Amino acid sequence: MIYTQSVLTLHLSNLKENYSYLKGLASHSIAAGIVKNDAYGLGIERVVPVLLQEGCQHFFVAHACEGVRVRRLAPNVQIYVLQGIGNDSLSDFISAHLTPVISTPAELVFWKQNEIESIFPILNVETGLNRLGFRLSDMKQLDDTDKKRFSFVMSHLACADEREHFMNQKQLKAFELMRSFVPDLPASLSASDGVFLGRAYQKDMVRLGAAVYGLNTAPYRPNKMKPVMSLKAPVLQIVDVPQGDYIGYGASYRAVKDMRIAIVSIGYGDGLPRSLGRRGRFFWGREELPFTGRLSMDNVMCDVTGISTLKEGDFVDVLNSFYTPDDMGADAGTIGYEILNEIGKAGRLRILED
Amino acid sequence: MIYTQSVLTLHLSNLKENYSYLKGLASHSIAAGIVKNDAYGLGIERVVPVLLQEGCQHFFVAHACEGVRVRRLAPNVQIYVLQGIGNDSLSDFISAHLTPVISTPAELVFWKQNEIESIFPILNVETGLNRLGFRLSDMKQLDDTDKKRFSFVMSHLACADEREHFMNQKQLKAFELMRSFVPDLPASLSASDGVFLGRAYQKDMVRLGAAVYGLNTAPYRPNKMKPVMSLKAPVLQIVDVPQGDYIGYGASYRAVKDMRIAIVSIGYGDGLPRSLGRRGRFFWGREELPFTGRLSMDNVMCDVTGISTLKEGDFVDVLNSFYTPDDMGADAGTIGYEILNEIGKAGRLRILED
Repeated sequence: MIYTQSVLTLHLSNLKENYSYLKGLASHSIAAGIVKNDAYGLGIERVVPVLLQEGCQHFFVAHACEGVRVRRLAPNVQIYVLQGIGNDSLSDFISAHLTPVISTPAELVFWKQNEIESIFPILNVETGLNRLGFRLSDMKQLDDTDKKRFSFVMSHLACADEREHFMNQKQLKAFELMRSFVPDLPASLSASDGVFLGRAYQKDMVRLGAAVYGLNTAPYRPNKMKPVMSLKAPVLQIVDVPQGDYIGYGASYRAVKDMRIAIVSIGYGDGLPRSLGRRGRFFWGREELPFTGRLSMDNVMCDVTGISTLKEGDFVDVLNSFYTPDDMGADAGTIGYEILNEIGKAGRLRILED
Repeated sequence: MIYTQSVLTLHLSNLKENYSYLKGLASHSIAAGIVKNDAYGLGIERVVPVLLQEGCQHFFVAHACEGVRVRRLAPNVQIYVLQGIGNDSLSDFISAHLTPVISTPAELVFWKQNEIESIFPILNVETGLNRLGFRLSDMKQLDDTDKKRFSFVMSHLACADEREHFMNQKQLKAFELMRSFVPDLPASLSASDGVFLGRAYQKDMVRLGAAVYGLNTAPYRPNKMKPVMSLKAPVLQIVDVPQGDYIGYGASYRAVKDMRIAIVSIGYGDGLPRSLGRRGRFFWGREELPFTGRLSMDNVMCDVTGISTLKEGDFVDVLNSFYTPDDMGADAGTIGYEILNEIGKAGRLRILED
């Protein structure tokens, strides 16, 4: 048999289990589902129905255009838009009944001029990440009418994936200070990583993203999440390369001995980061097949010297249960989030679901 | 005004000019258009009509699923599939009348068992890249009937972006040797980079990809291609950060002085490589705004200390006429090809065309 297309399997049953597990860890909080960035690359249309089945009633997206897609799937849930509302998205907020996360005084002014009936925004406050949010001086300007416009107050942790990082306590304290200006509002502080820091960080709503997608947001201990992505790629050709021959673009790899390589039908056009370079590897069972030479857009060459069982037409593992997006991210000098993003959006993989 | 969504402008008129310019450089060759990987991320449905208008009659894709999309737009052209034909794509080849590039003896056997009427594959031969293709020993096995099945013989250069690289001559010579087994077939050796090496490398068909998309495939001299992508991102918030404060995830950046930062609504979810890190920068006119702290999925913070003209709601340049995908690739430790790929596929940018 000959195969040319790589196969991405999305483990939606694992995604469901991950969500339930995290929801159980924060059982007194609302368990919101984060489906921004096309559900971390997996596809809003695939992920939202799974979370709905598990009873999720609160969804976060980054942009209004994503919220519109969630609304089509979920007519009766709350949909919060993290990047907020503006002139370029107001019509989407109205038509899809989206709730903005308001992060700047100017945005609050805009909201007061364009308020949508029965929508109560979230007030986002800055506590140490120095990203979007009201600062202390902005909080002091809020009047009582302003404060009644909101449904929640939220912030975001910078270092919650490091349990003992001093920033966690510091941000918790800063959050309590900011909350003192809006004492009647329920609060949300933590994403997946903060959930693992315990009840003090969980507040009234947790925002479950990365860990739902299988990433290890508590890397100080082995991952408890199940992987949501497996990827395998077909071997198109296996050839002998004599000592001294070059492999790949730029002739950057030279065979120091006679070797045997496999040419595998996957590349950075399928979402593998080019920065994997020589650290990249496929798996054939438990055998590692190191990349040789540069990744190209459509193909990767790897060393299969001495691997006699591998044949043309076989599929090698690119991501599996023991080599996850987190592992590939580490090899590529990045994080699992970016791996999910790129592979999920590649657009030319055969996609299966289980 | 408040804006939240970044805006990607695709300069299809520049793409058209790039194609025409390259076609002029190789005026005695067929000028095939490479639209693999969703036209380098720009979208097959956008790019194919432009190339058709310029008289392009030969298109290359990587995978049959891409060829099917080209066929819908172009009923009467030749569509070649670089990754070849297999059990997983045979039905697409038949329905969309696609032409495989055959690169292995096993694939030739498959083709003989599944030949499609009036389709004449391209024979791909290996000349030094050590990627897909018939090796010398394989050529010796071809019989006369086999040789008559093909319409072209092709190979691919490893180092054509370096004019003086020894591999160019070496591959040219190897290609002539391989051609001696199939002397009646017209030949194709060069992609964009090889076109600039002159007539000896251009043969009967050139395969125009990267340079059509504005990338500099002849980096030993300034780029003659026009950019096909501009990207701008809105400033959501501008804030003062006191000396000693941390910025971004992991508290990896600390302000060594009082500074002013802008929080910009774009991130790696929009295709900016996370590896840009501290080398990343936006532009406000000719002012550089260096990134501060880690890129996140939806936002980047940058230093705007002393830039008094920039206001919330303004758009900063992410890619423009003097900071191109090639430049961003260099800053991120990769190549412009990967930048186009990721930004093009991000899926949540507002897209304009000109």
